[in-house]
Amino acid sequence: MTKTKNILLGHGSGGKLSHDLISELFVKYFQNEILSQQTDSALLSLSLKDIAFTTDAYVVDPLFFPGGNIGKLSVCGTINDLSVSGAVPKYISASFIIEEGFSIEELESIVKAMAEEAVKSGVLIVTGDTKVVNKGKCDKIFITTSGIGEIDEKYKSISSGTRIKTGDQIIINGSIGDHGIAILAARESLNFETPVLSDCASLNGIIRNILESGVNVKFMRDATRGGLATVLCEVSEKTNTGIELIETSIHVKEAVKGVCELFGFDPLYLANEGKFVIIVAAEDAEKTISILKNDFLGKESTIIGEIVTNHKGIVAMKTEIGGSRIVDMPAGEMLPRIC
Amino acid sequence: MTKTKNILLGHGSGGKLSHDLISELFVKYFQNEILSQQTDSALLSLSLKDIAFTTDAYVVDPLFFPGGNIGKLSVCGTINDLSVSGAVPKYISASFIIEEGFSIEELESIVKAMAEEAVKSGVLIVTGDTKVVNKGKCDKIFITTSGIGEIDEKYKSISSGTRIKTGDQIIINGSIGDHGIAILAARESLNFETPVLSDCASLNGIIRNILESGVNVKFMRDATRGGLATVLCEVSEKTNTGIELIETSIHVKEAVKGVCELFGFDPLYLANEGKFVIIVAAEDAEKTISILKNDFLGKESTIIGEIVTNHKGIVAMKTEIGGSRIVDMPAGEMLPRIC
Repeated sequence: MTKTKNILLGHGSGGKLSHDLISELFVKYFQNEILSQQTDSALLSLSLKDIAFTTDAYVVDPLFFPGGNIGKLSVCGTINDLSVSGAVPKYISASFIIEEGFSIEELESIVKAMAEEAVKSGVLIVTGDTKVVNKGKCDKIFITTSGIGEIDEKYKSISSGTRIKTGDQIIINGSIGDHGIAILAARESLNFETPVLSDCASLNGIIRNILESGVNVKFMRDATRGGLATVLCEVSEKTNTGIELIETSIHVKEAVKGVCELFGFDPLYLANEGKFVIIVAAEDAEKTISILKNDFLGKESTIIGEIVTNHKGIVAMKTEIGGSRIVDMPAGEMLPRIC
Repeated sequence: MTKTKNILLGHGSGGKLSHDLISELFVKYFQNEILSQQTDSALLSLSLKDIAFTTDAYVVDPLFFPGGNIGKLSVCGTINDLSVSGAVPKYISASFIIEEGFSIEELESIVKAMAEEAVKSGVLIVTGDTKVVNKGKCDKIFITTSGIGEIDEKYKSISSGTRIKTGDQIIINGSIGDHGIAILAARESLNFETPVLSDCASLNGIIRNILESGVNVKFMRDATRGGLATVLCEVSEKTNTGIELIETSIHVKEAVKGVCELFGFDPLYLANEGKFVIIVAAEDAEKTISILKNDFLGKESTIIGEIVTNHKGIVAMKTEIGGSRIVDMPAGEMLPRIC
């Protein structure tokens, strides 16, 4: 595309080089009518007045990891935040902060992955920004995506947690910790017999299937940074309900277990990028599991616990060896820059 | 607030320290019902289905400069992008990438400035994200804001430039280059008799006054990165019209002129953060000027040129000494990281 193989400060100037980068990379791959207007703001015509709005910065290290890269992650993450709120993701913005000297070829791979994920999930990347900072002033590339989704009136109370009642069943759509361990393995060059892939995926399709099935969904949240434990601690504290988990129902891949033992990590706190917790009415639990299992992203779904009247505001877990332990909010940071 | 005076990696973990930071800083200053829900996505009820959506990353160096700081800038910038599209800015998201060790006191000043600007401009900061990266992996703090504004059907063609016709008058709401020079002066510790302040300001009020006055607005754009020249080159190229500027009508402060001579800068290319170009029908030009001058942010508004039939796609300027020169798109980067 441009005559240089690397990003120059001028690519962030707003001038000619910026324009070339926008036309020859972003507009080329994200192709849609709205973005190609190249106005300061994208003009959108919504079909509902109730919307969900979210933002996330992505600083993952390394940029490329088994199962994805920072571009795919930045699109999936925003889609998932909107989806667990009960919204249908529609429009995404993408803001890039790039270190001078960054390879345009790598940037192209990242942008391509974003475009592919957007097409697959039915969202449009409609507006963006690029800033370039001097060498050594940022770590290669950071991406911030924001998203807008349309939300039906009847789903608006899902993200608040106010629907949750004693007896509700807690479900997750597969094994935990894959993303965290995939990142760690890429960083530390760990070798596995079977490599652990990040679970990075857009959950809007599988979530839509559940909502449209008429299942009585009480709450949903994607278990990203801070892992399953953090989501459940937040729900329990916010809604002042007790949560009882069953350790043996929570899938952890053998390779993930192995690395956790080696590094002293607890998989409950490891990041996922394609897993969500869904709390449903007890009578709908089996139906939910069967709908989830019908989807590639939910094949290993299990009921992992329930809402209880005991120990309000506390998450407890029945352990494999028959005891019970409290699951706390993580205090520090186990693995920085996993997303 | 927290027991530490500096940002730790744990503040970006999604766990307990993240929660403390959110409650004790962001929710405290940005206070509004929507943000305090602390859900993954903000749920918004719009009054129109037509919206404008924009995003910008802010990497300005230094973080604090005469007339503003990165926080104020990040809110004004997004408000202005929405306003020049003809939209009424409503909701903003704020994503922070912070270097480990960054002072919480400085973060608080930045967040306070964002909150003040939001209140002043009638927008709500409704959702956000915080990531912390290891020391040396980013330069103190980067902020990405995205914004949603509601746009009336009748203003939807303003940002496209399709309304522009020969004879339309080009207006700017004051002197150019102040922001660029304020940043440069802060960086180089230049001393002025009268310091140059950044013009960083939210333009939603002054723009609304113009739109509601019934003036026939053909186009608007804020003249930020790349300066006045870049905006006009873009318009001219996109709409395939000629632009004729009159150098003597373009205000440049004496101090700004002085620094430009010293460093070999052209004020036409210097960034502004409170200036916008407005193109109006010839018969409405004087009315526009008088409305603009009624506002503190438009006191020095002038007609700086017009749309001509000659030299299509080219911006020419009648110079002070009587000649004419072509104004080109900037090729490289004069002053990196001014926003």
